[in-house]
Amino acid sequence: MDYKKLFSEYALSMRVSDIRELLKVVESGRVISFAGGLPDPRTFPKEEIASIAKYVVENYGDKALQYSPTRGVKLLINAIKDFSQRQGVRVREDDGIIVTVGSQQGLYLLALSIINPGDYIVTEEPSYLGMIQAFSARKTRFITIPIDENGMKTHLLESAIKKVLSEGGRVKAIYTVPTCHNPAGTTMPIERRKELLEVAERYDLLVIEDDPYSVITFEKTSVEYLKTMDKSGRVVYLSTVSKILAPGLRIGWSIGPEPVISKMELVKQAVDLHTPTFPQYIVAEAMNRRVIDNHIPFIKAIYKEKRDTILNAFEEYMVEGTKWTKPIGGLFVWTWFPDWVNSRKLLEIAVKNGVVFVPGDSFYPNGGGYNTARINYSFPTKEELIEGVKRLATSIRELKSTLS
Amino acid sequence: MDYKKLFSEYALSMRVSDIRELLKVVESGRVISFAGGLPDPRTFPKEEIASIAKYVVENYGDKALQYSPTRGVKLLINAIKDFSQRQGVRVREDDGIIVTVGSQQGLYLLALSIINPGDYIVTEEPSYLGMIQAFSARKTRFITIPIDENGMKTHLLESAIKKVLSEGGRVKAIYTVPTCHNPAGTTMPIERRKELLEVAERYDLLVIEDDPYSVITFEKTSVEYLKTMDKSGRVVYLSTVSKILAPGLRIGWSIGPEPVISKMELVKQAVDLHTPTFPQYIVAEAMNRRVIDNHIPFIKAIYKEKRDTILNAFEEYMVEGTKWTKPIGGLFVWTWFPDWVNSRKLLEIAVKNGVVFVPGDSFYPNGGGYNTARINYSFPTKEELIEGVKRLATSIRELKSTLS
Repeated sequence: MDYKKLFSEYALSMRVSDIRELLKVVESGRVISFAGGLPDPRTFPKEEIASIAKYVVENYGDKALQYSPTRGVKLLINAIKDFSQRQGVRVREDDGIIVTVGSQQGLYLLALSIINPGDYIVTEEPSYLGMIQAFSARKTRFITIPIDENGMKTHLLESAIKKVLSEGGRVKAIYTVPTCHNPAGTTMPIERRKELLEVAERYDLLVIEDDPYSVITFEKTSVEYLKTMDKSGRVVYLSTVSKILAPGLRIGWSIGPEPVISKMELVKQAVDLHTPTFPQYIVAEAMNRRVIDNHIPFIKAIYKEKRDTILNAFEEYMVEGTKWTKPIGGLFVWTWFPDWVNSRKLLEIAVKNGVVFVPGDSFYPNGGGYNTARINYSFPTKEELIEGVKRLATSIRELKSTLS
Repeated sequence: MDYKKLFSEYALSMRVSDIRELLKVVESGRVISFAGGLPDPRTFPKEEIASIAKYVVENYGDKALQYSPTRGVKLLINAIKDFSQRQGVRVREDDGIIVTVGSQQGLYLLALSIINPGDYIVTEEPSYLGMIQAFSARKTRFITIPIDENGMKTHLLESAIKKVLSEGGRVKAIYTVPTCHNPAGTTMPIERRKELLEVAERYDLLVIEDDPYSVITFEKTSVEYLKTMDKSGRVVYLSTVSKILAPGLRIGWSIGPEPVISKMELVKQAVDLHTPTFPQYIVAEAMNRRVIDNHIPFIKAIYKEKRDTILNAFEEYMVEGTKWTKPIGGLFVWTWFPDWVNSRKLLEIAVKNGVVFVPGDSFYPNGGGYNTARINYSFPTKEELIEGVKRLATSIRELKSTLS
C-alpha cells in the first residue's frame, strides 16, 4: 500500500512519546523511574474489588454485561452525584453528568465539542500533558499563564486574554488543575480561584476544572472547588476513580452545564458508543458501599509518607540553586533546576546513572521550561525515592563538570 | 453562557438518534422491539465471567487494575492472535493488533487515521450505522454499492470508484461487513470477495473487514475471511467479543498492516489513553481458558432458533410483495416492503400497534431505502417475535387502507 497517500493529516501531539520512550528504558532494567504517573498498587482495594466484581455479575449480570447508554449507567451517575456532593462539589439542578473512559476522554470530548481549529484555551504553564494532547488533536492554540508555588498567576490572566482577543483570536475556555496540579504539584489559594472565575465571567468563558487529586490531599486546606464557587453555571468539573480506587477501571466523569454535557454525549456516540458497562457497575457499587470513602485515609497515609520522603531527600541531597514545589497531594513534585541546566541533556546523563524523569518542556505547549522537570513520587518505593534523588543530584554535578 | 458562541462546528451524525428515540418508546411500555441490536443476555456466560473477574483481581490485581499501554495489554493481544487463528483469520507476520473500546472505536480511529475531510470510502447500501457515524464525524463522503440477497453487488464497484476518481475525488478504502451483514443479514459468496479484493488491489485501496458475527454463524458456509484471502496486506480486520462473550466489557480489536495500526494507536492516545485494563484481562483469560470457544455452540443454538422463528413468522403472516433476507448468522433480517410503503409512515402506525423497527433509510448514507426496514431478532423472546411480526403485518394493512 502507498501509506503516504493513505494517511490523513490528523493533528497529533507527539509529546507523549517522550514519556513512552522513557518508560521503555525503565522496563528494560534497574533504572529508578520518576517519569511515570502511576498510582502505588498498594492503594488498590483488591479484595473489595474482587468481591464487588463477582457480586455485580451474579446480581446485575444481564445489565452489567449488556450495552448501555452513551451518557453512562444511571446507577453510576446517581452514585457520582452523591459521592461528589459528599466531597463538597456542588452539583447544580441544571447540570448534566457524563461517564467517560478516564477523564482523558472527557477532555477529548470537550475539545471536539467547543473548539474549532485555531481557537484558544487558557491554561497554566506548565500544563497537563493529556489535556495538551486532547486539545492539540483539535488544533487548539494555547494562552499560557506562568505559575509560582501557588499555581496559576491569575493576575496575568486578563491581559493575556485581552491581547489575543484584540488580535481577533477566539478564546473558548480556561483549563486548570487548581488542586495538586499535574505536573506542578501546586494548589491555588482561594483568592486566585475567585480572580479566575471573575475573569471567566467578564469574558464569558467556560471554565474546565480538572480534579483527579483533591479527594486525597493529605494536608488540611481551606480551598473550595471552582465548581462550588461558580455563580453562573460555567464550570465543567472533571474527575476520575484512577487515584482513589483503580486506574485500570478507566472510569471518569464530567459534571457541567447540560448543553455542554449533551454535546459531549453526541460526540461520544461516534467515538465509542459508550463506556464499558461492567466497570461502571463496579464503581457504582464501590461508591454506594462507601468502599472509596473508607479507603481514602489509607491512600493519604501512603502518599504522605512518600511525599515526606522525597521532600526530605531533596532537602538533603539536591544541588544548590534548585527549587521545587511542596505538594499537599497528587503524585508530582515540580523542579526548577539552575539556569545552566538543560533538562534533556541532564536526562541523558541521568539514564546512565540509573534514574529518569520527564523533562519539563514537554508540559509547555508554547515552548519554554528547558531547565525544569516533573518528578513522580507515587510509584517508586521509599528506598528508590531516596536513591533516585541521590542519582539525580550526582547527574547534575556531572552535567556541570562537562560545562566548565 | 453564550452556548451558540461556545460550541464548535464538529460534524455530527444525528441518524443514531432515530434508534435512540425508538428505544425510549420501548422502555416506556409493552411495545415489542425489533429496533435494538442487543444480544440475548442468556448468551452471557455469567458464572464463568464472575469467576474469571474474581480470579483476575486476586491473581493479577496489581497489573489488571493499573494503567496499561495504549495499544492494549500484551496478554490479550496474544490471546486475540491465537483466537483469530483458531477461527481461520490469517494474521500476517507484519500485522499489528490494537485493542479498542468496542470495534466502534476501531472505526473511529481508522476514520481519523486515513480520512481528510471530503475523502471517500466505498460501502454497501444499506451500511452499518456505527460506521456511518464514525466516518461522518470526519466528514467522509460515501460511495454506496447496492446489495442483493448475496450482499454487495461487487460488479458495480469498479465503475463507481472510477466515476469518483475521474471527478478528482480521493478514495481511501472499501468498508464491508461481508458475513452476516448489519443491517442486511447477507453473506457475500467467495466470488464477490475475490472481486472486491481485486478492485482494491487495482486502485490501491485499504479494505476494512468488519466482522462481529462470523464466529456464530449457524449454517455451514464455504466463505473465507477477506483478511485470509488478502495477498498484499491491505485488509484491516475488526472484531469484538460483544456477540460471543458480553458487549458490556466493550472489548474490540483491529488487526492490520502495522503502519495503519500504529497510526490508530497514536490517535487513541489523545482519545482515551487506553482501553480499560480490567476487562482486557477478563477477555484474555476467557479466551485462554477456551470459555468463548466452548460457549459458541450454545450461542448458535439460541440464535438459530430465533432466526427460524422469525423467518417462519414472516412466511406465515407477512403481507404480499414484501421481501426479506435469510441470514445465516448475526442479529438482523433486512426487509423490503412493497413500493407503496413508506417505512417512516409505517412506523407511526406500528408504534400504536405495539411494535417498532428501524426505518431502513437510516442506513443509506446518501439517501434512499424509504421502503426498507431493519428487523432485530436476537433480543425479543420467541413469543414476541411471532406476535411482533403479526402486528407488523397488521400495520402494513392499515397503512394500505389509508392510501386507497
